[in-house]
Amino acid sequence: DYSLKVMDHFSNPRNMGSIENSDGIGEVGNAKCGDIMKIYLKVEDNRIADVKFQTFGCGAAIASSSMATEMIKGKTLEEAWKLSNKAVAEALDGLPPIKMHCSMLAEEAIHEAINDYLKKK
Amino acid sequence: DYSLKVMDHFSNPRNMGSIENSDGIGEVGNAKCGDIMKIYLKVEDNRIADVKFQTFGCGAAIASSSMATEMIKGKTLEEAWKLSNKAVAEALDGLPPIKMHCSMLAEEAIHEAINDYLKKK
Ligand code: FES
Repeated sequence: DYSLKVMDHFSNPRNMGSIENSDGIGEVGNAKCGDIMKIYLKVEDNRIADVKFQTFGCGAAIASSSMATEMIKGKTLEEAWKLSNKAVAEALDGLPPIKMHCSMLAEEAIHEAINDYLKKK
Repeated sequence: DYSLKVMDHFSNPRNMGSIENSDGIGEVGNAKCGDIMKIYLKVEDNRIADVKFQTFGCGAAIASSSMATEMIKGKTLEEAWKLSNKAVAEALDGLPPIKMHCSMLAEEAIHEAINDYLKKK
């Protein structure tokens, strides 16, 4: 069963959508379930000024991405890079073990998006 | 990649929600990904007068359930029982092989809901 925080971020996801003229985009696929996650970053002064996500993934992926994007907003790129899916799951008061792989999507897509930004810069 | 019909039913799902005073409820879980599907039926004169679904599942599960509920609305219970996940996937112009198991959720939940209705009657 899912925690109240998971249900909240699933039913009312934060930062869902895309960013026009984003500074970095990360797209990753989950080999385990075939789902896809896309993260858009707006970077200012080495900080994440804005972040949005899009996914075809399940409720656990939506809730984790919603929480993860909230956690990195306003942070430096170095701080955002260090966000682990375990920390996101803890902030959500836990995820069922079978759904931990869904929370990896956000972490990996954030890394890809930061790399994309650094490459373009 | 997903067909236009899958994207349409994913972004704008039909029959999402629940039915108060429903005549039958089916709830099934997917062992492969841990997701859950719930189907609510309103039955009148042996026909499906209304149907709604709720899921924590991925985009493919949402699109299949949206299409499946559209396909059984107004049908007799016998017709609804015969709806296969393959027919639903075809109506959606196909699903990636790795996502076919997601479309099973709707088929199984419809069977459970019809059984629940017949049991209560
Ligand atoms: S099952 Fe694919 S993201 Fe959760």
